[in-house]
Amino acid sequence: MSIESRIAEIECIRGANDQQVAEHGRLLMMRDERNAGRAVEVLDDGFVHLVDHMGGDHAIVQSARVSYGDGTKSVSDDRSLIRYLVQHKHTTPLEMCEMKFHVRVPMDTWRQWIRHRTASVNEYSTRYSVAIDSMQNTEQDWRLQADTNKQGSMPGELMWPEGYKVEPPNDGSSGAVVLDNGRPRMLTSGDTMTPNEYLSAREVIFQKEARHVYEERLKFGVAREQARKDLPLSTYTEAYWKIDLHNLLHFLELRMEKHAQFEIRLYANAIAQLIKPIVPVTWEAFEDYCLNAMTLSIAEQNEIRQALHPTWTVCKKAMSSRERTELETKMECLGIEPLLYPSDEGLSS
Amino acid sequence: MSIESRIAEIECIRGANDQQVAEHGRLLMMRDERNAGRAVEVLDDGFVHLVDHMGGDHAIVQSARVSYGDGTKSVSDDRSLIRYLVQHKHTTPLEMCEMKFHVRVPMDTWRQWIRHRTASVNEYSTRYSVAIDSMQNTEQDWRLQADTNKQGSMPGELMWPEGYKVEPPNDGSSGAVVLDNGRPRMLTSGDTMTPNEYLSAREVIFQKEARHVYEERLKFGVAREQARKDLPLSTYTEAYWKIDLHNLLHFLELRMEKHAQFEIRLYANAIAQLIKPIVPVTWEAFEDYCLNAMTLSIAEQNEIRQALHPTWTVCKKAMSSRERTELETKMECLGIEPLLYPSDEGLSS
Amino acid sequence: MSIESRIAEIECIRGANDQQVAEHGRLLMMRDERNAGRAVEVLDDGFVHLVDHMGGDHAIVQSARVSYGDGTKSVSDDRSLIRYLVQHKHTTPLEMCEMKFHVRVPMDTWRQWIRHRTASVNEYSTRYSVAIDSMQNTEQDWRLQADTNKQGSMPGELMWPEGYKVEPPNDGSSGAVVLDNGRPRMLTSGDTMTPNEYLSAREVIFQKEARHVYEERLKFGVAREQARKDLPLSTYTEAYWKIDLHNLLHFLELRMEKHAQFEIRLYANAIAQLIKPIVPVTWEAFEDYCLNAMTLSIAEQNEIRQALHPTWTVCKKAMSSRERTELETKMECLGIEPLLYPSDEGLSS
Amino acid sequence: MSIESRIAEIECIRGANDQQVAEHGRLLMMRDERNAGRAVEVLDDGFVHLVDHMGGDHAIVQSARVSYGDGTKSVSDDRSLIRYLVQHKHTTPLEMCEMKFHVRVPMDTWRQWIRHRTASVNEYSTRYSVAIDSMQNTEQDWRLQADTNKQGSMPGELMWPEGYKVEPPNDGSSGAVVLDNGRPRMLTSGDTMTPNEYLSAREVIFQKEARHVYEERLKFGVAREQARKDLPLSTYTEAYWKIDLHNLLHFLELRMEKHAQFEIRLYANAIAQLIKPIVPVTWEAFEDYCLNAMTLSIAEQNEIRQALHPTWTVCKKAMSSRERTELETKMECLGIEPLLYPSDEGLSS
Repeated sequence: MSIESRIAEIECIRGANDQQVAEHGRLLMMRDERNAGRAVEVLDDGFVHLVDHMGGDHAIVQSARVSYGDGTKSVSDDRSLIRYLVQHKHTTPLEMCEMKFHVRVPMDTWRQWIRHRTASVNEYSTRYSVAIDSMQNTEQDWRLQADTNKQGSMPGELMWPEGYKVEPPNDGSSGAVVLDNGRPRMLTSGDTMTPNEYLSAREVIFQKEARHVYEERLKFGVAREQARKDLPLSTYTEAYWKIDLHNLLHFLELRMEKHAQFEIRLYANAIAQLIKPIVPVTWEAFEDYCLNAMTLSIAEQNEIRQALHPTWTVCKKAMSSRERTELETKMECLGIEPLLYPSDEGLSS
Repeated sequence: MSIESRIAEIECIRGANDQQVAEHGRLLMMRDERNAGRAVEVLDDGFVHLVDHMGGDHAIVQSARVSYGDGTKSVSDDRSLIRYLVQHKHTTPLEMCEMKFHVRVPMDTWRQWIRHRTASVNEYSTRYSVAIDSMQNTEQDWRLQADTNKQGSMPGELMWPEGYKVEPPNDGSSGAVVLDNGRPRMLTSGDTMTPNEYLSAREVIFQKEARHVYEERLKFGVAREQARKDLPLSTYTEAYWKIDLHNLLHFLELRMEKHAQFEIRLYANAIAQLIKPIVPVTWEAFEDYCLNAMTLSIAEQNEIRQALHPTWTVCKKAMSSRERTELETKMECLGIEPLLYPSDEGLSS
Repeated sequence: MSIESRIAEIECIRGANDQQVAEHGRLLMMRDERNAGRAVEVLDDGFVHLVDHMGGDHAIVQSARVSYGDGTKSVSDDRSLIRYLVQHKHTTPLEMCEMKFHVRVPMDTWRQWIRHRTASVNEYSTRYSVAIDSMQNTEQDWRLQADTNKQGSMPGELMWPEGYKVEPPNDGSSGAVVLDNGRPRMLTSGDTMTPNEYLSAREVIFQKEARHVYEERLKFGVAREQARKDLPLSTYTEAYWKIDLHNLLHFLELRMEKHAQFEIRLYANAIAQLIKPIVPVTWEAFEDYCLNAMTLSIAEQNEIRQALHPTWTVCKKAMSSRERTELETKMECLGIEPLLYPSDEGLSS
Repeated sequence: MSIESRIAEIECIRGANDQQVAEHGRLLMMRDERNAGRAVEVLDDGFVHLVDHMGGDHAIVQSARVSYGDGTKSVSDDRSLIRYLVQHKHTTPLEMCEMKFHVRVPMDTWRQWIRHRTASVNEYSTRYSVAIDSMQNTEQDWRLQADTNKQGSMPGELMWPEGYKVEPPNDGSSGAVVLDNGRPRMLTSGDTMTPNEYLSAREVIFQKEARHVYEERLKFGVAREQARKDLPLSTYTEAYWKIDLHNLLHFLELRMEKHAQFEIRLYANAIAQLIKPIVPVTWEAFEDYCLNAMTLSIAEQNEIRQALHPTWTVCKKAMSSRERTELETKMECLGIEPLLYPSDEGLSS
């Protein structure tokens, strides 16, 4: 749901309360920041906002030149120097740039994010304040469990589980309840819902219930630090997050990668979009030498040599079938024909 | 719920399945570790298990002596050396001890824990595997919001909110449902439940529903990384957590403190219990010089001087009422009589 | 030697070479930075230059408020909030400020400095470039080995070692050579030199010889990385040094302390002078709650209680004589009279 | 100079003093440790001694399996799991191993070493104790400044600088003095010394003088912390150094690399030798996927594709001549013939 629609929604309310007025102000500010290129919306209610930064391409060059002293006179220009640093992993000058973000992100994603230990963090405290009243909604974009990757997902169509019973279970949990014109009712066999619609209806109902349980506890006077214990991981949190460019690029390398979870990849891409204009030369070098680089293990180098020269005697190392698949992708990318590829039979793995 | 009761419970099952057999084995192992002093049970289903450690008091002395070279000949014994190091915050020798734990902890508590960035961590991945089927249960120990501390809780009796309606809300969330002999039913005005019983009944029902929603998604083939998005923060996770002694003591200083949240304090105390036998001398010094030390700010030093010598002219600094309350506690602890304490009127704050 | 005298010296040179012209420009820039309050001269040829910073008192408040959410409405003003954070060691908001310095410092001092691992560093490389042609000169300020502190120094007058022979030793090292009108000659018994003058003369001669040995190796074509191996620790190096405010204050707490070595204390004081105007409120809180705070161990609290109430039965812990001396200083500071202080006889230590 | 010769030397002394007896004991212990495979001699008087470690290949697997939970059932064996972790940079399980070393190393090398900020360190303090009486001796292995690499060295023969004057310079520094049967004398034109012999003679004389200056200051009562200021960087220091395996492998990747300085490479190789038996599987994976891996930038991938398929239209990126040289080495290693390599003319650089 876009900032614009949220703003419009609030503006339709007659006699908005204080909280709504404050939210309205926040949204207008965020819209301005986004339009100015300093903020990006992510997911249904998240954002990344570049609050401040120290240094850019120039600061990297400046500190590198103190290392090299007069020695850098031979490096003709700043661009070459930055590319040399990035290529050869001389990363300390990149630490001289610092970026500070304000982010709004589901706790589920934040749990992955916070595993990067090299940043400074101030997170919204649900001990001090009532939890943010917003949970990430899937908007029917459910993904299938990947069949080749234990930890991944893949696109595809959800199917009703065979013989799925729509009755509520005996234990009183609400079972196959759906939203019908905004009101819940039991799902019946006559319904024409897709599985995606069904799961999303369940999601909305569950999240409402979760908030209800949380707020009920507060009404009873339960401490915030305890009332929050059953909030869903989809609950949004906010944080200031400050990190130097070297560690940020490492974060992005891991989190823009195709095996990273979709949600955190969206945030990583948003961050990338915000910092590119600040360090354009470094970013280009990062893309060329890191993001899009190809690494060949010893075994892969041997296989390529053998593929190109079937008659050579190459000392080959055993590869697992997973490794072999990865190698084939790399060889295809380098234009090394499958035809040239020798038989693998007889190789132990 | 103790390890013993869990073991007994499983042993009563006729024809236990594979998962139950595995759980049984895990519990037996954990019982042995606990009985051997290497594991402590925490909360209803959590634990801290000291898996391995490197070095003890001796390793601290050994590395300190390399720093001081022949210079330490004058330090008569190891105990004095360790106490000197701890008192004067010469903490690098304490980094020479390393402790590795296996912990099982609710995600809510883990979120606080993981903010300490100086440890090595491997956490159970709910992308790879189905989430642990266990959520922390409050067992009716609900705490009140503290009235003097925005972020704390305090003991006390919960009251029914005035005019609390027990009907289910219109939006289909389950409302005031209670467990009656293990089966849910609507709460009626004739019920004699306490608020604690009511909230705990709601907790159980909600957690069941949360698990049901999660497992339903898996049945539809939704990727684990996405299905988990609405798991409650009370869901248990597990991790290996490795940290050096200096940083561990810092963790304990913050998390054994009376303002730390009750749940993480239980874990901190469990850790303390496990490491004391390994570094007995260092632990005693830590208690004497850190845990139980008193720090006096410049303003507090002035106030004490003034209290003891009302006729002296002391340059006093303004203190907030919060600071004054803290000071009074410290003075009482030092045996400085309130009678000696001069009037504060006329002091700006 | 001040920047001004260095500038004047170069300006007197007729037909200055490229290196001298460059040095002249550097000195003019540094003078301007110093006059603008962004640089401080330290020692005979060192400096600290604040190159850039991100955030100030305001940035700390901003990030703290995201943590506390609406919860901070009750904290009336920014100043109180900052003081609260500093007093209670809630230091993560202080990490949101970042400072970047360009420093010039003898390698001996740099060896201590670099032990702080939480900063980003780019140091002048003597593999890439010829070592900086400047060594720290003592200017006759020789300090005595402290008699109470194994690792410290104390003021006092140097004495000629009894029966010190001024002849050169047999092994060919240059022995008691002195500078006489800028030219070296053997020291004779008729000389009226002070020990300080003598040691400083030796220092100059030795440093010249060290540079000569270094440059001679370069003339032979020896690699810079190897030629540098015998440079004295007094050789100046330069670095960019970037650190967040929390870690910087920790650095200053350790390095402004009276037991820190004199040379690094000068640098710490220079840094303090540069950052105070940027974070005035935080700095004041740091002085009140950290720099000038007094910490009382359990044993010290007991002793104070006993001193004030000789008739009370207090559980006293043994203290070493070192600890007792430290306690007496603290009690005196608090105005607790020695007269009240009970006899310690019979206490084991 | 080997441990054995040092031991023999001391044993020849009649009436050895306390210090010599202590040194003798240290050398015997170090010889035993070396013979047991836990210590390696480096340079003329340095060593690396593996004092303790926590965990090995098994600990890595153990913590990885907690991450993956039941998910790792499909990974058939520990070896594959470790190789997968190393290949895909899932490095947190590698942090679960910890290694502790006692090292003796010239300060010059230590200055590079200590730049790795992820280790725990206790270094010998020359404030507390008299500096170790040992400086690294080059033993005539002088290296030439590399002609292709600003920061490197290369083998080759030193030549007398043209017209090099052997007279002592006017400024009193000792000039072209040489050792003749252990006694210094002026170098004369009739001498048949090689440049290597000459520089090493100068080195010995200079180091003796440096020690003399240092000890003379101590005799005058100068504080150790100040007396040390002109010690040469070649002075040996000692330290305890503790680091986890992930960060240790990163250290080794940088310091075993062919561009690392020769001296620190010797230490890195010694460390490698000591840890291989503890983590044999991880080490092999590290060699295959990191140490000996080849990384191809986007531009390099394009060039290879073009070389193999001259008729394809490949979007080529400009490469500097430095990059082109590096690429040619990689192509040769992969067996991609120069003949296939297309003309580069017309390409902008």
